[in-house]
Amino acid sequence: MKITINQKNLLKALTTTERIVSRNPSLPILNNILLKTENGRLKVAATNLEIGINYYIGAKINETGEIAVPARIFSDFISNLGEDKITLVTKNNVLSLSTSKYKTQILGLDPKDFPIIPKIKGDNFSVIPSKILKNSLTAVFDSVAVSETRPELSGVYMSFSSNQVVFAATDSFRLTEKINELKHKEKNSLIIPRNTVTELIRLASDIQDDIAIKLGDNQVAFVTNDIEIVSRIIDGSYPDYKKVIPDKFISKTLVKKDELEKNVRLAGLFSSSIADIKLSCNEKNISLTAKNSDKGDIQVSIEAVLKNEPFDISINHHYLLDGLKIIPTEHVIIEYTGHGSPLVLRPEQVNKDLVYLIMPLRN
Amino acid sequence: MKITINQKNLLKALTTTERIVSRNPSLPILNNILLKTENGRLKVAATNLEIGINYYIGAKINETGEIAVPARIFSDFISNLGEDKITLVTKNNVLSLSTSKYKTQILGLDPKDFPIIPKIKGDNFSVIPSKILKNSLTAVFDSVAVSETRPELSGVYMSFSSNQVVFAATDSFRLTEKINELKHKEKNSLIIPRNTVTELIRLASDIQDDIAIKLGDNQVAFVTNDIEIVSRIIDGSYPDYKKVIPDKFISKTLVKKDELEKNVRLAGLFSSSIADIKLSCNEKNISLTAKNSDKGDIQVSIEAVLKNEPFDISINHHYLLDGLKIIPTEHVIIEYTGHGSPLVLRPEQVNKDLVYLIMPLRN
Repeated sequence: MKITINQKNLLKALTTTERIVSRNPSLPILNNILLKTENGRLKVAATNLEIGINYYIGAKINETGEIAVPARIFSDFISNLGEDKITLVTKNNVLSLSTSKYKTQILGLDPKDFPIIPKIKGDNFSVIPSKILKNSLTAVFDSVAVSETRPELSGVYMSFSSNQVVFAATDSFRLTEKINELKHKEKNSLIIPRNTVTELIRLASDIQDDIAIKLGDNQVAFVTNDIEIVSRIIDGSYPDYKKVIPDKFISKTLVKKDELEKNVRLAGLFSSSIADIKLSCNEKNISLTAKNSDKGDIQVSIEAVLKNEPFDISINHHYLLDGLKIIPTEHVIIEYTGHGSPLVLRPEQVNKDLVYLIMPLRN
Repeated sequence: MKITINQKNLLKALTTTERIVSRNPSLPILNNILLKTENGRLKVAATNLEIGINYYIGAKINETGEIAVPARIFSDFISNLGEDKITLVTKNNVLSLSTSKYKTQILGLDPKDFPIIPKIKGDNFSVIPSKILKNSLTAVFDSVAVSETRPELSGVYMSFSSNQVVFAATDSFRLTEKINELKHKEKNSLIIPRNTVTELIRLASDIQDDIAIKLGDNQVAFVTNDIEIVSRIIDGSYPDYKKVIPDKFISKTLVKKDELEKNVRLAGLFSSSIADIKLSCNEKNISLTAKNSDKGDIQVSIEAVLKNEPFDISINHHYLLDGLKIIPTEHVIIEYTGHGSPLVLRPEQVNKDLVYLIMPLRN
């Protein structure tokens, strides 16, 4: 390989790919980044065997070739260089870098040992604007189960029907569903692992373009002009979560979201493991109380508009805060659906595109 | 106690005092902050038995009194409140806080159990502008020994003579001395513990005023109108470091500081435990080389102006970077004083107020 490349472009590719490089002592090749000339561009690739990223950048290619180089030292070096043209030459698995001022040799590994990142062929299964992908994944992310006890819950469920793409996640303590109206040909559904979701959110935040989705047997690829993220799909069938979302409510209250968020945070300081914090919703206000025998107690009241009967509920304040965080409107609707039933949070306009459920505390 | 106080002022006092609150499971009182009315103001105090801070803030005092309250929950609560007047009332070691919207009770402890922060009486021993204190302590800080093997090296040495205040620190691998011309009555010297230095740098960064120094038997106090930091002094006599500073050089070179810093960082990526990095200083440039059998190698050259003979030296690149960081001028002077003698860094103008020594590597 003999190529010339712009430092800024190379650094951008490294910043993205390096994130998934694992510090894997048992499989040292995974600590490396693959550099490979491909169709007139340089491919910068990394994989942790669950996710693989291919990042393509423009380069002046004098001689094709490939090498695997340690991610850490390579990206430290490139990021400390000023903006400049860099010439990369490989010989016997050694990468020689030179710029107008520097001469460096980095010891690499045989690119043949680098794991293959599968290529998913065929047509795009779907195309999603990056903004919709980012907002939807961000909204449901907190509800993804952290534990792997039930593997199917440790990812985001994406379901495609003729005119909707639905995102859902639940860890069985709370549940988020985000519906997007989006024309689409085929029906299908898949579960994307948590770590892949994190990478997709970052990717979708960085770009403006649409993102194409390609489906393989056990793999899914998210593809733009320059970047491919290839991930395993979680095996298993997602629970029929729709039946958990109540279609009726007993009472509901409308309250300023920021005001409630701030006060839940304060009350949470005095939460106890038994009742956490308590919401009492009356005609004109919500009063929050918490009492902790080691710390003290708090009571605070904020304005709200109630429909139907007053209600009381004990609630996990962390889950409530996570829910309030994703409500995009100035006010939030809180629906009480009965003792032992979920508490439901919705944006102000009674639209059906976002819903957040907190399951009842078991006493 | 019954007082009314401004949230913003209280928060500022808590932010400063809370830093030294230790998470000390064996002495739970140290996790607390003492609130006490004193001479028409509220004193907010914390101590970790090595350092004590008293922070005085204006308050409307209806009834005097005192209480010890858990630092964490108290400061979390105050920082999450909006700007507002807060009324604090104590009764039976319970602190009741109320604002226009909130009512809270925080369980406190008996203030009698709170350790006494010693009051140092008598005249000011010295008065130092906060900017000089901050710059001098920051300059020498990196050379303070982290280990406590030789306790006298684990602090900053301050030496007062008739017209100088000198700051010095050494961990025996490198040494920094900063001299300030400052009129002063008495001669004396003291060693300030590392953690106290950190607090003093923060304090001196926050304020514009002069800082008075009071000396007690084993204690020193740094005092402004609103804040007192009382610290133990390290017992022991500081080594006669002056004799280590070479008064002559064999060769010296003048180089752009930023340029050298950047290149030392790059070369450091390829440093080895044997020779670290190597500087070769010739008439017109400094060339940096490093070679690591696991990673690769680098060579780079930057413009410099040499006086006398060319020289080569192997040097710890971390120590070199620490030294370059504190040089306040555009260029740095590097003095070679012979094989087995320290390498000396000085600011561009040959002033004598700042010197940084790197002791020779032992091969």
